[in-house]
Amino acid sequence: MQPVGERPAASREIGQPDTRLDLGRIFEAKEQISRMFRDTPQFGCSSLGDLLGCELIIKLETANPIRCFKGRGTEVVMSRLERADQKAAVCASAGNLGQALAYSGRERGIGVTVVAATSANGAKIDHMRRLGAAVELVEGDIEDARKRAREIAASGNALLVEDSENLDTCEGAGTIGLELVEGFDRIDTMLLALGGGALATGVGHVFKCLSPATEVVCIQPSGAPAMALSWRARSVVTTDRADTIADGVAGRFPIAAVLQDLLAVANHVPLVEEASIKAGMRLLHRHAGLVVEPSAALGVAAILEDPSRYRGKRVVTVICGSNVLPDAFSAWTQD
Amino acid sequence: MQPVGERPAASREIGQPDTRLDLGRIFEAKEQISRMFRDTPQFGCSSLGDLLGCELIIKLETANPIRCFKGRGTEVVMSRLERADQKAAVCASAGNLGQALAYSGRERGIGVTVVAATSANGAKIDHMRRLGAAVELVEGDIEDARKRAREIAASGNALLVEDSENLDTCEGAGTIGLELVEGFDRIDTMLLALGGGALATGVGHVFKCLSPATEVVCIQPSGAPAMALSWRARSVVTTDRADTIADGVAGRFPIAAVLQDLLAVANHVPLVEEASIKAGMRLLHRHAGLVVEPSAALGVAAILEDPSRYRGKRVVTVICGSNVLPDAFSAWTQD
Repeated sequence: MQPVGERPAASREIGQPDTRLDLGRIFEAKEQISRMFRDTPQFGCSSLGDLLGCELIIKLETANPIRCFKGRGTEVVMSRLERADQKAAVCASAGNLGQALAYSGRERGIGVTVVAATSANGAKIDHMRRLGAAVELVEGDIEDARKRAREIAASGNALLVEDSENLDTCEGAGTIGLELVEGFDRIDTMLLALGGGALATGVGHVFKCLSPATEVVCIQPSGAPAMALSWRARSVVTTDRADTIADGVAGRFPIAAVLQDLLAVANHVPLVEEASIKAGMRLLHRHAGLVVEPSAALGVAAILEDPSRYRGKRVVTVICGSNVLPDAFSAWTQD
Repeated sequence: MQPVGERPAASREIGQPDTRLDLGRIFEAKEQISRMFRDTPQFGCSSLGDLLGCELIIKLETANPIRCFKGRGTEVVMSRLERADQKAAVCASAGNLGQALAYSGRERGIGVTVVAATSANGAKIDHMRRLGAAVELVEGDIEDARKRAREIAASGNALLVEDSENLDTCEGAGTIGLELVEGFDRIDTMLLALGGGALATGVGHVFKCLSPATEVVCIQPSGAPAMALSWRARSVVTTDRADTIADGVAGRFPIAAVLQDLLAVANHVPLVEEASIKAGMRLLHRHAGLVVEPSAALGVAAILEDPSRYRGKRVVTVICGSNVLPDAFSAWTQD
C-alpha cells in the first residue's frame, strides 16, 4: 500500500461553508429512496473479522435489482426531477450509475439515456437496456463518455446527472451513513471506496456530523489514483490513465467541488494494489459468501495492506456493488 | 423430478383447528425479532429470471451474522423464554438452528447447548462455539442428535427447542411471508425448502391467510423425501436414510403435528435430484452473485426440473442459508 499522507479528523461544526453537503438534506433524501435500496443489511462477519484481526461489519448494498448502492442517489435525483416535471435524464456511466438511473427513471416514467465507453462491462450494459434506458456507446473510457453525455444534455431538455458533482448522488449515498450510525453505538473505522467521491463524501459527511470520532478511510486503487493524489495535494490532480480492474472507481479527472467535500471528511486515503483487491474479493467470497465487484473489495484490501491500523477495532466496509462478469470473477479469484 | 401428487389450494377460513399456526401470533412474532433478522431484502433478479422463463424474486435470508433464516424463529423462542425467566435451552441441529439459538441466547444471557452429529458441517460447529454455545457431538445423523437433546432437556431445567415442533420456530419463519405479502401486490408462486417444516408451514400459513391465490410449493431432495412422502400419504412416513448434500433439510422422522400443518398449506410438493440442486447453486452464483447452501437452491432446482409450471409467473424463492464450506461449494458448482 502507498499511503498518500494523513490528516487528523477535521473538527468542524455542522454546516460550515467548506462543504456542499447538508445533513438535513441527507435525512430528507432517505424519505425519497424506495424501500428497495434502503435499510440494507449491516452485520458482523466473525469468520472474516477473525482472519483480519478486527471486528468486521459488512454493510451490504448489493441485494437489490441493480446490485449496487447507486440506486440511493438516483432515487433522490429522480424524485426531485419528477417534482420539477422534467422528463428526461442523461448520464455517463461505467455501468452502475446507468443501471441505477435506468431503474429509477422507469419507476417514474422518466426517459433515461446512458453513455458508456465501449470498454464497459457488457452485463451492466445489457441490464441498462433491459431496464428501458437508451444506451449510446463511445470509444475510449469513462471521461470520453462524460464528454458525450454533456453534449446530449446541452442539446436537449435532459438533466445531466454527473455522479458526485450532482449533490443528490452524494446525499443519497450518505443515507448509508445514517443507517450505520443508527444501528451501532460505536464504529471505529469506516472504509469507503473512493472513485468520483459520492459514496466517500456522502457517508463521510454523516460521520463527521454524527460520529466524529470515527476514522473515515477512503480507498483508491494505485492504478487509478487521481482523487487520492488530489486529496494529498489539496488541489485537483488529473492522470493520463486509469488502469485497474475496479472499473467502478476508475476516473481520471476529479471534480474540484467534490475534492473540497472530501477534504472536509477523509482522515486517511490509502492506495491499494490490484493483487490486494483480488485477495479481498477472494476472502469475501470464501468467508462471507459474497460475490463482489473489485471496487467493493477495496476496504478489505486496505486492511490486508495495513493490518495493524485496524487491529482490534470495529471496522465497517461497504460492499458497494456485485456487478462483475462471472468469468472475470473466477479469473481474479483463483487461488 | 418426481412429483409426489398434488392437491388444489386448501380453501379454509383463518384459524380452523386443523393447523397449529395462528396469524395473530405471527404478527406478534415480528415484534420479537431483532432488526438483524427481519425486513430482509426482496428483489427481482432479471438475469436469472430471464434464463428460467419467469419473473424471479429473491428473498434473501443470508445477510446476517448466522447466514440463514433461523434467527427469526430462535428470536421468538428466546424472547418468550426470557419472559418465562428460564435460563437454558438445548437443541439438536445440523448447524443452522444451533447457530441461531446460540446467537439469540447470547444476546439475552440464556445458556445454550447444541447437540450435533459428528457428520455436521464443521464451519457451522465452529461458529456455534464462537457464539458461546456448548456443543456436544454424537455419532450418527440428526435423528441421533435429536434423541440426545431430549435426554439433556429431560435431565435438567433446559427448554428443548425442536425445530418445527416448537411453534415459535414456525411462526418466526412465517414473518418472511408477512414481509413478502406487504412488499408485492401479487405473488403467483412461493417456493419453499421443506425439511422439518418450520419454513414451509410458517410462510405457507401466511399465504393461505393473506394471499390464498398464491401457489405454495414445498420442495425436498429425492434423497431425503420423508416429509414429502408423508404429505402424499397424508400420514407420517419415515425413511431409513437421508442421502443428500442439502444437510439443512435432511430429516427422516417427520413430526405428525407439523405434517398436519403442512397438509393445510402446501399445494405441490416436488422432489428434486441432487444434480438439479447443484445446477441451482451454480446458477444463483453466476446470475445472482450469491453463494448458497444446497437447501437454498431447492427452489431454483424445482424450476429447472419443471419449467413449464412456472413460465411467465412471478415466483419467489427464499434463499434460506449460505452456510456451506468453500471447498464443497466449489466442488458442487464446477461446470
